[in-house]
Amino acid sequence: MKIEGKEYRTIWFENNKVKIIDQTKLPHKFIIKDLNTIKDAIYSIKTMEVRGAPLIGATAAYGLVLAVLENNDQSFLKKSAKELIASRPTAINLKWAVDKMMDKLSGVNSDKILEIALIEANKICEEDIKFCENIGLNGLKIIEEIYNKKKNTVNILTHCNAGWLATINWGTATSPIYHAHKKGIPVHVWADETRPRNQGANLTSYELNEEGIKNTIIADNTGGILMQRGEVDMCIVGTDRTLSNGDVCNKIGTYLKALAAFDNKVPFYVALPSSTIDWEIKNYRDIPIEERNSEELSHMEGLDEDGNLKKIQVYPQKSKAMNLAFDVTPAKYVTALITEKGVCEASSSGLKKLFNK
Amino acid sequence: MKIEGKEYRTIWFENNKVKIIDQTKLPHKFIIKDLNTIKDAIYSIKTMEVRGAPLIGATAAYGLVLAVLENNDQSFLKKSAKELIASRPTAINLKWAVDKMMDKLSGVNSDKILEIALIEANKICEEDIKFCENIGLNGLKIIEEIYNKKKNTVNILTHCNAGWLATINWGTATSPIYHAHKKGIPVHVWADETRPRNQGANLTSYELNEEGIKNTIIADNTGGILMQRGEVDMCIVGTDRTLSNGDVCNKIGTYLKALAAFDNKVPFYVALPSSTIDWEIKNYRDIPIEERNSEELSHMEGLDEDGNLKKIQVYPQKSKAMNLAFDVTPAKYVTALITEKGVCEASSSGLKKLFNK
Repeated sequence: MKIEGKEYRTIWFENNKVKIIDQTKLPHKFIIKDLNTIKDAIYSIKTMEVRGAPLIGATAAYGLVLAVLENNDQSFLKKSAKELIASRPTAINLKWAVDKMMDKLSGVNSDKILEIALIEANKICEEDIKFCENIGLNGLKIIEEIYNKKKNTVNILTHCNAGWLATINWGTATSPIYHAHKKGIPVHVWADETRPRNQGANLTSYELNEEGIKNTIIADNTGGILMQRGEVDMCIVGTDRTLSNGDVCNKIGTYLKALAAFDNKVPFYVALPSSTIDWEIKNYRDIPIEERNSEELSHMEGLDEDGNLKKIQVYPQKSKAMNLAFDVTPAKYVTALITEKGVCEASSSGLKKLFNK
Repeated sequence: MKIEGKEYRTIWFENNKVKIIDQTKLPHKFIIKDLNTIKDAIYSIKTMEVRGAPLIGATAAYGLVLAVLENNDQSFLKKSAKELIASRPTAINLKWAVDKMMDKLSGVNSDKILEIALIEANKICEEDIKFCENIGLNGLKIIEEIYNKKKNTVNILTHCNAGWLATINWGTATSPIYHAHKKGIPVHVWADETRPRNQGANLTSYELNEEGIKNTIIADNTGGILMQRGEVDMCIVGTDRTLSNGDVCNKIGTYLKALAAFDNKVPFYVALPSSTIDWEIKNYRDIPIEERNSEELSHMEGLDEDGNLKKIQVYPQKSKAMNLAFDVTPAKYVTALITEKGVCEASSSGLKKLFNK
């Protein structure tokens, strides 16, 4: 999608380097960064220079390409794969992508290992783009239906960033929105600020601006009263891990919006590529919920009056803070899942029907 | 209550001046400010140097004392009363306090008008302190009951600041907590950050720190998963206006926490002095919900690395934001109301029984 009028993807391979957009610098600075080693890739995932379940997966895949370039010894690759999986605990795509890569690379000792790695990493990216596009086309039908009834701007609330910046292109939650916009359906997005890292403001609003889609940032606290007032027609969010029973693990605060949507009969959709489904864990209490540094809450970065990037401490000196990164929305609060294969009920039977599991 | 070991109230009258703690400078600077004129009082209310429904009421009362000092002409007092009521729309105590004052001052042309004004304003403050103390004693029983069952630290979630800084002393939501602490019951408070103005972090956590009460700041998004995990024993919040049917208007985001509490069977209490009850409006949709400047969202103040107070812009340059200040929690999600007269059901019959209306 576009940044300052130019088409980009979030990650690509060029001259034996992996190129990423450093998302910790957005929206104030647009910086393309080179990853040269597996260590660089792990650092980018950990510090959230790249984030979003599908993009984390792709970065892990290219990280293994960098590992092969450094040292194609099998034990080094295995160690790298392990370190990648441990770099962030909650998004399931990370493990999915690493497993896919290692399936192709394990035991390969020929000269072709680099080519094999690169083909597989590229394939993971191309597949993600195709999946996101299909999610968009499937979700578009839902937006069209609302528009045909309402004959007026469709107001869509989203939480965090499940935009193209969280994937390779199109996004998951935003893909139906981009497709609707391209089709001429008037849409307006309520972008939850999404504390503590403000990805709704810094990434979702930013990328929607760049594509010319109307949006308004709101505090995470605001969605409830907007729904009470009838100012939200639908919610769409992404997910870092969806259980086979339809429970959805996503950015902290998603659950609260789902409760408000349920209370106000606003449909609540979750958009996901099937790479985000965890077919193994049965109980949401077994999902590892990442706890991140509390400085992400107590400190804030932005531009000072001279336009320089500054970090300030916003909390009282003596205060403690706690920073959980995800929560779980029980399936009963999810109207439907929008996947690359179609729209289904958030339930075992719904998912089984689509994915033959 | 205490700041740096010294006892304070949030507002007092001294040498023909009104003294307030400038709450926009907390937690980084503790500044006592003089209000010399009715204009100063209105400015303090509008800019939230004073905030919290009971404190806004008290400031309005003392504002009219300042008006009398300036010009005790009846038309000036009437104009001042009108301007005070218009200074913030949602908190009902503002009108309540102004009406109380004007009841005493209307038609008084004698030399005694200053004395009458001061006596009434002091009375409003003393009554608020007494009410808050009683709220504390009534709420204490609820905390004690949980403690007696649990025999371990009682975890209490609160939203925004309904602390002593929102009243004259004790606070509403915090008063039961302070009373429990004084009685030796171990309590721990989850303080919702409370975007956009961060009063949960900047005021609630700050005042709890100063009283030596354990607390942890969390993003507003976090309460849901903490309740899913059983890490919240009860919620207590304040209110800016409670309808006679038990619907509660409070800081934006309160509704989302009430939904999560309901979903997880965590009791959700609202603490209020009866001055906060609106006996007239019947439908919550008729409550005027204040929309404040969007800069409160897009900009943030804090300390830079040199310890200087700095304001930074955190949102993308091109983005729009919308800043609603309150929402409404329907009575059905409120376990009970804690008032100065006792604890009652959040319903017409519950309130009628306590207040003989």
